[in-house]
Amino acid sequence: MLVVMQQGATEEQVQHVIDRLVDLGFDVHRSTGVIHTVLGGVGGRYDFDLAVFEVMEGVKEAHRIVSPYKLASRSFRPEGTVVQVGGVAIGGPEVVVMAGPCSVESREQIERAAEIVARAGAKIIRGGAFRPRSSPYAFQGLGEEGLKMLRAAADAHGLLVVSEVMDHTQIPLVAQWADILQVGARNMQNYNLLRELGRQQKPVLLKRGVSATIEELLLSAEYILTGGNYNVILCERGIRTFETYTRNTLDISAIPVVKKLSHLPIVADPSHGTGRRDKVAPMARAAIAAGGDGLLVEVHPDPERALNEGAQSLFPEQFEELMAQLRLIAPAVGRKL
Amino acid sequence: MLVVMQQGATEEQVQHVIDRLVDLGFDVHRSTGVIHTVLGGVGGRYDFDLAVFEVMEGVKEAHRIVSPYKLASRSFRPEGTVVQVGGVAIGGPEVVVMAGPCSVESREQIERAAEIVARAGAKIIRGGAFRPRSSPYAFQGLGEEGLKMLRAAADAHGLLVVSEVMDHTQIPLVAQWADILQVGARNMQNYNLLRELGRQQKPVLLKRGVSATIEELLLSAEYILTGGNYNVILCERGIRTFETYTRNTLDISAIPVVKKLSHLPIVADPSHGTGRRDKVAPMARAAIAAGGDGLLVEVHPDPERALNEGAQSLFPEQFEELMAQLRLIAPAVGRKL
Amino acid sequence: MLVVMQQGATEEQVQHVIDRLVDLGFDVHRSTGVIHTVLGGVGGRYDFDLAVFEVMEGVKEAHRIVSPYKLASRSFRPEGTVVQVGGVAIGGPEVVVMAGPCSVESREQIERAAEIVARAGAKIIRGGAFRPRSSPYAFQGLGEEGLKMLRAAADAHGLLVVSEVMDHTQIPLVAQWADILQVGARNMQNYNLLRELGRQQKPVLLKRGVSATIEELLLSAEYILTGGNYNVILCERGIRTFETYTRNTLDISAIPVVKKLSHLPIVADPSHGTGRRDKVAPMARAAIAAGGDGLLVEVHPDPERALNEGAQSLFPEQFEELMAQLRLIAPAVGRKL
Amino acid sequence: MLVVMQQGATEEQVQHVIDRLVDLGFDVHRSTGVIHTVLGGVGGRYDFDLAVFEVMEGVKEAHRIVSPYKLASRSFRPEGTVVQVGGVAIGGPEVVVMAGPCSVESREQIERAAEIVARAGAKIIRGGAFRPRSSPYAFQGLGEEGLKMLRAAADAHGLLVVSEVMDHTQIPLVAQWADILQVGARNMQNYNLLRELGRQQKPVLLKRGVSATIEELLLSAEYILTGGNYNVILCERGIRTFETYTRNTLDISAIPVVKKLSHLPIVADPSHGTGRRDKVAPMARAAIAAGGDGLLVEVHPDPERALNEGAQSLFPEQFEELMAQLRLIAPAVGRKL
Repeated sequence: MLVVMQQGATEEQVQHVIDRLVDLGFDVHRSTGVIHTVLGGVGGRYDFDLAVFEVMEGVKEAHRIVSPYKLASRSFRPEGTVVQVGGVAIGGPEVVVMAGPCSVESREQIERAAEIVARAGAKIIRGGAFRPRSSPYAFQGLGEEGLKMLRAAADAHGLLVVSEVMDHTQIPLVAQWADILQVGARNMQNYNLLRELGRQQKPVLLKRGVSATIEELLLSAEYILTGGNYNVILCERGIRTFETYTRNTLDISAIPVVKKLSHLPIVADPSHGTGRRDKVAPMARAAIAAGGDGLLVEVHPDPERALNEGAQSLFPEQFEELMAQLRLIAPAVGRKL
Repeated sequence: MLVVMQQGATEEQVQHVIDRLVDLGFDVHRSTGVIHTVLGGVGGRYDFDLAVFEVMEGVKEAHRIVSPYKLASRSFRPEGTVVQVGGVAIGGPEVVVMAGPCSVESREQIERAAEIVARAGAKIIRGGAFRPRSSPYAFQGLGEEGLKMLRAAADAHGLLVVSEVMDHTQIPLVAQWADILQVGARNMQNYNLLRELGRQQKPVLLKRGVSATIEELLLSAEYILTGGNYNVILCERGIRTFETYTRNTLDISAIPVVKKLSHLPIVADPSHGTGRRDKVAPMARAAIAAGGDGLLVEVHPDPERALNEGAQSLFPEQFEELMAQLRLIAPAVGRKL
Repeated sequence: MLVVMQQGATEEQVQHVIDRLVDLGFDVHRSTGVIHTVLGGVGGRYDFDLAVFEVMEGVKEAHRIVSPYKLASRSFRPEGTVVQVGGVAIGGPEVVVMAGPCSVESREQIERAAEIVARAGAKIIRGGAFRPRSSPYAFQGLGEEGLKMLRAAADAHGLLVVSEVMDHTQIPLVAQWADILQVGARNMQNYNLLRELGRQQKPVLLKRGVSATIEELLLSAEYILTGGNYNVILCERGIRTFETYTRNTLDISAIPVVKKLSHLPIVADPSHGTGRRDKVAPMARAAIAAGGDGLLVEVHPDPERALNEGAQSLFPEQFEELMAQLRLIAPAVGRKL
Repeated sequence: MLVVMQQGATEEQVQHVIDRLVDLGFDVHRSTGVIHTVLGGVGGRYDFDLAVFEVMEGVKEAHRIVSPYKLASRSFRPEGTVVQVGGVAIGGPEVVVMAGPCSVESREQIERAAEIVARAGAKIIRGGAFRPRSSPYAFQGLGEEGLKMLRAAADAHGLLVVSEVMDHTQIPLVAQWADILQVGARNMQNYNLLRELGRQQKPVLLKRGVSATIEELLLSAEYILTGGNYNVILCERGIRTFETYTRNTLDISAIPVVKKLSHLPIVADPSHGTGRRDKVAPMARAAIAAGGDGLLVEVHPDPERALNEGAQSLFPEQFEELMAQLRLIAPAVGRKL
């Protein structure tokens, strides 16, 4: 903790800040400079708002020196985390592709999707059973029936299953059918959900919110880790910017940034990140070239008739072509597929 | 629904779009221009993704003509909605101020806060019992005990109560003690919560998400309205931008925009919108000058010792001064306080 | 200058940072903590890039303690600057309104505009003679002829003139006819232009760029101030955000922020800030309520036939109504109009 | 041109819009629907502001059907543009790397840089002679002497030269020494500069502004193309977003978007796009994997002692390693290096 006083701050103001630091458990070291007095705090609590100091009279700026997250930081596990699930390792030498339709729509649709996914060489199938939609008039998902269909299709093709859990009450149900529990971007700061996910052991795929900083993503991961569940996979899926041509701006640079700050694996979702089919393959290739540990990609047997997000779903043959390209790119970054 | 074809789109491509429109229930009118063919769709479903058309071969752009929300639109109730709650009218000629601490911390603190709020002339007290925090190490609220303390303090001073409900399972509990149920910015697109709030009749204060467009805010309101609850109050509380000096950028222009697009009342939260005490009063005045129906303001008996968000809480005397200024500004926009 | 070393940084890394600080002229104070070593630098140069330290091995973070601007900072002139021009004082107790059309289009148009502006009680007329347009196919302005028409119309109605200078070669020409030289948002970081404006003495109205932080705005002002011209008026005119309903998001909170950080006066331009006529008056009122020193507003005798920006120009009667509202709001913030 | 009237728009309002369209030279087709009347305009002028219609009484929305740019659009040259310069083809099958220091600092520095660039296999050296800096206290460049040193170093190693031109008066000087004239991000909408660049024939490297949409980038290119200079290379270099960990967010998705909308080649600048050395290589790989035609990369013989932007400059050995990785990635997208 560092507090820099304004030029001309009074002794009373300096003392007021020191008192407040001591209240929070800090040992305070004072350094009086020609222009600025700087107060350094050692020890002390984590659970306070930095702005409390920033608005105090005579304070110029305040900085937290220790990261607000600990278990999620790279220094906690310098060698990196590999999430093991059913024989697949996420965060290891192999790039892992999770693919499938946005929503489970019918037994036949998900069966055909599983066949496409498996044939192209992906290991995990995705598919939503509960669909949060911004319009109350849109298709909302098949619920538990959808989960059962998804599991059956996956088993028939030797695939693992990742599916979204929309709130903490759904965890037992989704965990019964899925191998990895997905937290959607809108739920990245649903702390009740995160806390409960930390108390169970299925791996969690945590998507970055569209307006979340990387630090906030890591703080959300910290919620899960503090519960004792270390199997967290982060997912970059686009942030909201002024550019409207793509639905969101897939922040590829988040991949190397997360790799430096944290030990957790990170994958990218170029489908939600762009919202348009013809941008999915370029961005998928970019994510792997930048060092991503895997992908979450939408592919649908018949995208033009998909009930949700068809515009961003690849045609089966596009998905196969993408997988072939990724097999060429992975070795350039010391990975394989 | 309008689909504009690219220059040189083939007859087959045009026909493919027409077929898809017909599938969705549209009557299609075709207009062949020198450069572009334009397809107009009348009738048809609401629950589809516009991008499905945008990515079709030969399509240049697609536009939805009918707003994606209906019950929330100004044309549904041109005269505007006034939310009546316990003798207070929100959206009427009077500007309504809701004030109080971020969190209920103790019986004494909330009692002192209620006295400050009532003495300055505000009608509604705010205070959180459940605190969603981005850090798992921060104070998380007093729960039901806090709600009881808040109710008691409000009753002692003739105030109404607004308090946040964090997920759909908490609605019965919070509704037992509060007069208005608040939906936080992070929950603006928690559709299970919105749906349940539509099925009960307590007024709802719906905060705009930090990365939500105004259209998305109105779509979220639509979720509540479709359930039959028309007592929705919107709240602008700052959007995330590149500027970091303030925590968020309070989008004052959202006030006149919402007034044009929707019949629902809108208030502003300058405390969360700026995150800094010395910016709260200027932005509160700006919100009322721009035509806002009211405010949600944080005031604390002892801001420097607040457990949450103290940096953005007004000192009691600052709150009184603000109320005096608002009494001068309100008449300039044909309102009173 | 503060450099915080990572946990576990080696002695060699620490020494490397110290050497680099000494190279830049800093006296270095070292503080070795339980977790982090912190290096404080006193004195030293201003003209270096902070990131140079941030990317060094073993460095956790680096902070500049002294503001990168000096002459523009509030501490340089705590009492605030009042720009005096032809009997009008900007930054003093009176709110100053500058109004007129986007472009000078004809002798008759600007004459009628001046009459409207003067009758409503504004003191300064605005009007562009050189129009930077994002499309090469749009109207580009009347040039020197336009400046002469603007001057004549202003003189006939006892008004001062503000007009835009598009690059440094135009300064002598525009300065011959205008009282205040305006720098457009796109030129906020045109350093050749800023430097030349610092070497002459006409007041400068400096608009914030649509993606400029407040700190960058103040750094641009610093360029002018270092040349010896202290008559700088800042102007908030909207930043680019994800919201598309308004053309830009007028950042009203920049007004109180600038008031705290700098001694320079600040006005707002609600016309460019919103791009839509019906949003101009609410935002103009908000800017004054938030403490702004004045406004730059577009008003046109016949907005629907304006050659530039007609959609954001007020009708004459709207402008009169706005002025009446502002006369009620100004006293609430201790000002008059 | 399409104007959609509001539900319940009066006949007088409809007629008013029709009159305005006819004024602008449009043939108007009227389609009266159950809910909305839609007016289609064919022919007509390009140089008007769409918002003029959006703010008219009774108008719901207005859309421009024809792109605001023509010469820059893909349909103008469906086969794509290959810019030929001194034996190097940009936009062809080969990925083109332009590398070098941010600024020319001395004869020795630029000579060593040229050696590094050439040895690693790049074809073009970059280096600034005029440095626009946000702080008036920073190093501003060597001017013409710097250009001569750059040319000499390039010639000695068989390289071409790209260097920035800061305003239209500098074009003759920079064109004398450089092969490609660079327009910086801050000048993307300096229309005087763009117009003059259109009147000469040296290729232009046009950088996207940090807050420019892709459409605005193409409109700026249009300015150059309308002058008769078709040798324009676009450059993505990062947009400003709320994320602060990287200096800007390199918008990799702009690459496939531009490829679809325009025939012009596009390269990426991962150095300015990230501002941090350790993020440069991952983002450079991503840009090529996404289909970019080349790169603009900063490499410096001694980055820690660079006068400008050293934090984002690669060490020589990092640049060599990057080139080796790119040679593996290029074939995955059908290119070579």
